[in-house]
Amino acid sequence: MDQTLKLTDYIKPIEFENIKKFSEGKRTPFLLINLKRVEQRYDELIRNLPFAKIFYAVKSNPSTEIIQLLHEKGSNFDVATIYEIDKLINLGISPERMSFGNTIKKEEDIAHAYKKGIRLFATDSLSDLMKLSRQAPGSKVFFRILCNSSGADWPLSKKFGAHPDMIYHLILDAKALGLVPYGLSFHVGSQQRDIGQWDDAIAQCKYLFHALKEQGVELKMINLGGGFPSTYIQPTKDINTYAKEITRFLKEDFGENLPEIIIEPGRSLVGDSGIIVSEVVMISKKAFSNDFNWVYFDVGKFGGLIETLDECIKYPIFTGTEETVKEFTESVIAGPTCDSMDILYEKFRYKLPENLKEGDKVFILTTGAYTSSYSSVEFNGIPPLKVYVVEDFEKL
Amino acid sequence: MDQTLKLTDYIKPIEFENIKKFSEGKRTPFLLINLKRVEQRYDELIRNLPFAKIFYAVKSNPSTEIIQLLHEKGSNFDVATIYEIDKLINLGISPERMSFGNTIKKEEDIAHAYKKGIRLFATDSLSDLMKLSRQAPGSKVFFRILCNSSGADWPLSKKFGAHPDMIYHLILDAKALGLVPYGLSFHVGSQQRDIGQWDDAIAQCKYLFHALKEQGVELKMINLGGGFPSTYIQPTKDINTYAKEITRFLKEDFGENLPEIIIEPGRSLVGDSGIIVSEVVMISKKAFSNDFNWVYFDVGKFGGLIETLDECIKYPIFTGTEETVKEFTESVIAGPTCDSMDILYEKFRYKLPENLKEGDKVFILTTGAYTSSYSSVEFNGIPPLKVYVVEDFEKL
Repeated sequence: MDQTLKLTDYIKPIEFENIKKFSEGKRTPFLLINLKRVEQRYDELIRNLPFAKIFYAVKSNPSTEIIQLLHEKGSNFDVATIYEIDKLINLGISPERMSFGNTIKKEEDIAHAYKKGIRLFATDSLSDLMKLSRQAPGSKVFFRILCNSSGADWPLSKKFGAHPDMIYHLILDAKALGLVPYGLSFHVGSQQRDIGQWDDAIAQCKYLFHALKEQGVELKMINLGGGFPSTYIQPTKDINTYAKEITRFLKEDFGENLPEIIIEPGRSLVGDSGIIVSEVVMISKKAFSNDFNWVYFDVGKFGGLIETLDECIKYPIFTGTEETVKEFTESVIAGPTCDSMDILYEKFRYKLPENLKEGDKVFILTTGAYTSSYSSVEFNGIPPLKVYVVEDFEKL
Repeated sequence: MDQTLKLTDYIKPIEFENIKKFSEGKRTPFLLINLKRVEQRYDELIRNLPFAKIFYAVKSNPSTEIIQLLHEKGSNFDVATIYEIDKLINLGISPERMSFGNTIKKEEDIAHAYKKGIRLFATDSLSDLMKLSRQAPGSKVFFRILCNSSGADWPLSKKFGAHPDMIYHLILDAKALGLVPYGLSFHVGSQQRDIGQWDDAIAQCKYLFHALKEQGVELKMINLGGGFPSTYIQPTKDINTYAKEITRFLKEDFGENLPEIIIEPGRSLVGDSGIIVSEVVMISKKAFSNDFNWVYFDVGKFGGLIETLDECIKYPIFTGTEETVKEFTESVIAGPTCDSMDILYEKFRYKLPENLKEGDKVFILTTGAYTSSYSSVEFNGIPPLKVYVVEDFEKL
């Protein structure tokens, strides 16, 4: 594997020139978000899955400007905590457009959400159902099926969901508890490359829809979760391909009479809208005999790039000189903190231009999702990653 | 391996009672710091290594109250960034009591530190030396040797330091560049259990001291780094044992005429002063056949417990009912966020009281170091870990 795509496969030359100009004289690192790209990705999703209701996964990037843009576009929102609920309500978003998608909830937080008007909740356990029945009576509940997430770059563990057999019983319990068993959800894993994973999960849903109908419970919704990819160092299939296949799976199982379909995109909506501008702090060798460099950036694992853990997500990294430079040097890339764990890529050796020098800027692409909000509050005294949200990289 | 120690091996019953009372009615999670314990650990270090100059590793816990206490006790400070330098200067700490211990530094940050009065710097590369010679002329510089950190619970990678052969040449370069080659440093790995690791490193220092003396460079200092342990779930040797052995190694190599000795304790000074009070958000099973529980706390990897990565650091976890409860259940422990990576312990199964229920408080001990400052700024909208610093758990 290698960085197979060129800088211009990600952004236009004019956009890159504007970003370079914008960066001049600013202390790095910072994240730059292109709202226009978010809007394009949203429109693409709507166009390709016209029957689906979009719930933006706020956790992927909680920038106010992104939330406001998607609000104006008519999006709904998947929220993880009461803090996100309160933030959205303060921005004027109706609770009817939110889904409390975290299956792990304190009873007092369910009460808070219900009081604020939330009526749609995810669940995967009996104890959560009991709490919902006490604090959010009559609410719609959807049930998360545990699913295998092989094929995903950022695979999901067994943290969320329960086995279908258990879900079946939970749904019957929910009805008895005065809740509205509304639908099923699953998540095939973030940055999922194997579209077939949706096929298996949708087939599971069909099975449960039927089994429960026999018990007098009519489920109405399937929440397909997220998992649509962003483009990191390798090309991915486009959203059109994903949408076509998923639509085919749905129609095979449910015919023309589809249940209500919800999707919860995060990464695929905002990932490629973001570019982290960083600076090379140091280039060194550890021994005279080493034929690779250690290159230290001023942003690392604790400044927003936590998804480099186990080198899962490989961000496209460019200096902008790649087209003119002839020689490249294999490099271990590390962050700026005194933490020895703060290494971005050691097994996978990026090839950086040989003439790269300290003080040069580097551009880390596709960093719009799961970066800024993960950033540590003050590790090594370093402030959280600064974010600039702009309308359009072409008119920066 | 198991939780072999009891709650009362860590804190006194009166302290625990006070902590429980203090926690009543407060929204969890929060970190509670016992300044008295920090003071005890500091006094112990001074007593056991009377010849050593202590430089507190500010990054381990940058709470103002801890810094002020150690300042009053006469400690020096190991700082990682200009942000830490500025913080300490604002607290009235003299730059003469600081060492800029990060080998990864921007040239403008070296200039900033020098302007503020810092005259002691760590280094491990030629390019950093060049920057130091330009921006911090005449400063004392110490050189970090790359060392093997096997035996450490939180091992160091090769991120810091260079091979001794390279260090030898860097020291000669430093002199030529008008800097003062002052000493050597190493770090055997954090939470290092194998005291013999110091022996190897000190022997390396002796070798370099001699070799450089032949070139007319008289090194004056050895920085032993940190690495002294805190007590997590397993008992550790006490500081007295570490100190005795290290003193023996030093005397074997340097005789009675020891060089200036610096140590940079972080974890061993503040680790066991901290207790995170958390709440059980949910207890569930994923399938009817599972004989273990999933237990979700309201604090996780992104709320300060990042050192649970790869289950490296195993914090002592107590509910306070362990002495009276008869049955315990194997549990996977996870955090509250929607991130599937946010699992604390899955391979290592803690045994939690069978009657543990949602809403119960849990006490995560030895969490004074490398927790609060790592906490994410707003992942899932969750605010950073709240910290209360108190004088004395016995008089809470």
